[in-house]
Amino acid sequence: METNALSVNLDAVFHPRSVAVVGASTAFSKWGQMVFSNIVAGEFGGRVFAVNPREESIFGLPVYRSVEDIPEPVDLAIICTPAETVLDVLGGCAEKGVKAVVVITSGFSETGEAGRALEKRMVAACRESGMLLVGPNTMGILCPHAGLFATGTHTRPRKGKVAFVSQSGNLGNQLIHWAEQQSVGVSLFVGSGNEAMVTCPDYLEYLEQDKDTQIIILYLESMGQGRRFFEVAKRVNKVKPVILLKGGRTEAGLVASASHTGAMGGNLALFRAACRQAGLLEVRVPSELLDLSAGFSSLPLPRGNRVGIVTLGGGWGVVTADECNERGLAVPALPDRVIEAIDRHLPPFWSRGNPVDLVGTRDPDAPLVAVEELLKWDGIDAVISLGIVGRLELLRLLVKSTKKVDRSKPAQFLDQMEDMVRQYEDGYVSKIAELMEVYGKPVLGVSLTRTEAGTVRSVPGRRYDGVFYQTPENAVNVLARMSRYASFQAGL
Amino acid sequence: METNALSVNLDAVFHPRSVAVVGASTAFSKWGQMVFSNIVAGEFGGRVFAVNPREESIFGLPVYRSVEDIPEPVDLAIICTPAETVLDVLGGCAEKGVKAVVVITSGFSETGEAGRALEKRMVAACRESGMLLVGPNTMGILCPHAGLFATGTHTRPRKGKVAFVSQSGNLGNQLIHWAEQQSVGVSLFVGSGNEAMVTCPDYLEYLEQDKDTQIIILYLESMGQGRRFFEVAKRVNKVKPVILLKGGRTEAGLVASASHTGAMGGNLALFRAACRQAGLLEVRVPSELLDLSAGFSSLPLPRGNRVGIVTLGGGWGVVTADECNERGLAVPALPDRVIEAIDRHLPPFWSRGNPVDLVGTRDPDAPLVAVEELLKWDGIDAVISLGIVGRLELLRLLVKSTKKVDRSKPAQFLDQMEDMVRQYEDGYVSKIAELMEVYGKPVLGVSLTRTEAGTVRSVPGRRYDGVFYQTPENAVNVLARMSRYASFQAGL
Repeated sequence: METNALSVNLDAVFHPRSVAVVGASTAFSKWGQMVFSNIVAGEFGGRVFAVNPREESIFGLPVYRSVEDIPEPVDLAIICTPAETVLDVLGGCAEKGVKAVVVITSGFSETGEAGRALEKRMVAACRESGMLLVGPNTMGILCPHAGLFATGTHTRPRKGKVAFVSQSGNLGNQLIHWAEQQSVGVSLFVGSGNEAMVTCPDYLEYLEQDKDTQIIILYLESMGQGRRFFEVAKRVNKVKPVILLKGGRTEAGLVASASHTGAMGGNLALFRAACRQAGLLEVRVPSELLDLSAGFSSLPLPRGNRVGIVTLGGGWGVVTADECNERGLAVPALPDRVIEAIDRHLPPFWSRGNPVDLVGTRDPDAPLVAVEELLKWDGIDAVISLGIVGRLELLRLLVKSTKKVDRSKPAQFLDQMEDMVRQYEDGYVSKIAELMEVYGKPVLGVSLTRTEAGTVRSVPGRRYDGVFYQTPENAVNVLARMSRYASFQAGL
Repeated sequence: METNALSVNLDAVFHPRSVAVVGASTAFSKWGQMVFSNIVAGEFGGRVFAVNPREESIFGLPVYRSVEDIPEPVDLAIICTPAETVLDVLGGCAEKGVKAVVVITSGFSETGEAGRALEKRMVAACRESGMLLVGPNTMGILCPHAGLFATGTHTRPRKGKVAFVSQSGNLGNQLIHWAEQQSVGVSLFVGSGNEAMVTCPDYLEYLEQDKDTQIIILYLESMGQGRRFFEVAKRVNKVKPVILLKGGRTEAGLVASASHTGAMGGNLALFRAACRQAGLLEVRVPSELLDLSAGFSSLPLPRGNRVGIVTLGGGWGVVTADECNERGLAVPALPDRVIEAIDRHLPPFWSRGNPVDLVGTRDPDAPLVAVEELLKWDGIDAVISLGIVGRLELLRLLVKSTKKVDRSKPAQFLDQMEDMVRQYEDGYVSKIAELMEVYGKPVLGVSLTRTEAGTVRSVPGRRYDGVFYQTPENAVNVLARMSRYASFQAGL
């Protein structure tokens, strides 16, 4: 653990050498069971200790009556015991020299006056002993780079560049679950809960210097230190995109937010103006946070707003072109040189324009030739490729039918067909990653079908990964946002 | 097949007693193989004939050299042979007394002057012999109620109420594939292709009287008979919602559309005004067509715009409330009576308002009590229920971890937990369907997780089905559209 000039160094939270779970339990689906079993099943590489005065052994591991009884140093304590016990537990942690605590327990400022008072005493106790306090009322933290998964939701995303900070635990946990399903690589996640001590700007400052984090995703409802938040966010956003969703933008949302965090949301117009001024990327719905995570973490930034579209079929080209124009992206006409180069691989009646409609061609080279010719041309800044990767799902249906009705076709032949298409798609993804590296421009794929692989398809050894959204609107939205962020970063 | 006063009776297309596939083939993934194997594997109940002069037997069935050689009557011929052969084939079909043809083949008006001329001759030939012509340049048709699946994409959605008419075959086929994945029930699908003879208003008139169809989905790029289209659509929409996506709304979309259908899109402002005047539901992207299909086909219409929200966790309640307000839906405060009724099932610190935040309660009755109390109250028109159905996916992850780390828990116990949650979710879906029937108000579910079951969860014996979207924004969008359609229908 390195020491630095940070106001709040959170290495003890995200990269602890040892973790104690207070209230660890074997009672299925209690918080102490969910968090402790997640850490153990997630194969955390450091030391793990269970604390519970009423158990002897949990998952074959020894159990300590209190944190003080643990015979080794404890960097991080995760507290799952009832609210009325937490002050005592914190006393023990201070005694032990614990560096940071994550208080999962709820029943503090979000529940009323008594809870607010208890929360204040908890913060005072932590400050006094120099312990960092994450939460309370959080659904936990995780850090794939440390192999540490300490959330109630047993989802373990792969290591990556995207950090998630969420004031709502259940929303945050769901985001992380989506991240795993979409193969978005995660640097860390924290449900910041009531932010009684460590607040959103503290997390931002930590993420600013965290070498694993390159993209920052925030779900915010309340804003305790608005001025400091925007100062920090503006600075960080110049280097690491800060993408945020503000809950409580409307009257109904504010009422909902006030009742569950106990905090008020503040003035939306001011908030929006400050976001714009800082160049932060504000989104409307949680699913957009994931879409943007995938794109920003895996693709080069476009240097402008001009898009080349390559499509297997006409209709999808049309709706994608519409979406581009409606989102402020241009779909420029192609010069003769580009048309001629693509022409060699397509039937005479192809579109001869942008979108490049491959008119269902089965020339295996045509899609990649079209993508590369577009990337080569300095008149476009990005390519959207529709419907090449994803065909495997439809081919499988055809193979299944053919096996059923055509006894004359050896099953082996049909399996080979499927393998060929799978290999073609894998090769396509690799080649796209290579082309992005060569030309320094993003290629956004659209699978159309719901594929088994996630949105992000990692390409080992390459600088960028393949990204394949299910729908064109998702790809276009991400590209429009990346293009605007790139202008902001370039000071345009 | 009944005769009626329709200008174009399409029963021969969607409910034929016998089908011939001209160009049927065993060559894997040729059109003649894809369509013929789909019909056979789909177990069409009528007679099926393969026509191909160069084959003896296909899938164990006899093959005829020409349509005229078929020894029984043929209602529908599906033509997959090259463009230059189609006129000859049509001659044979006329000779045979075929009632309708679906011309899959492309290479007609979409490819230029020569193709346009050929298409005209084809139409003339069909008119002369009284045959209906679907296409050309289509990816086929299907009708689950007739057990007929004659598309290149081997997706076989369940029987249902939603009809799809798409001028783009590949977009249409993908929509149908999504429909199957989301368990949306389909009455019929047609890729209308170049609409050389049978046009969109003809399909609408047919669907108007088709007893299986209750919802109509259109993907349109060009509009050949604008005035007639809007006359018919306005009339149909009063009884059966007409939901449409117009491709080619922007300059880039128009360019793309012109190159692939050869038709121009016309004036967008006029089109929009006509849609508004007819009360048609215009959407922006293809995925919305599916979301609306699921809602309109499975739920009662709301009688107003007031929404009750029930959520397992606060953050999701906030973003849903925001979405509601931003989409013109109200989230009214609850009267004491409703709060008191729900209060009996929740911890003292629950939100006591709308959204009803269940604060993670494990009282199994609480979610349904909250939903029913909201439905009972005449101050709301619809309920959105977040995060009950869908928990199974997260529980499975916990079960997996627990099996890995906790040898003391019998696997049987953990499997029982999983079964209990599965049964709870099934029971929840059934009860929601029952409540919708009792109170005549829609309940839209949001699963948050990507579940194995589709969006629509059929409840046999009930008037309505459960509908569970993955994200709140999808549910809110559908509810906002249904609410507006209901006002239109009521003449408000």
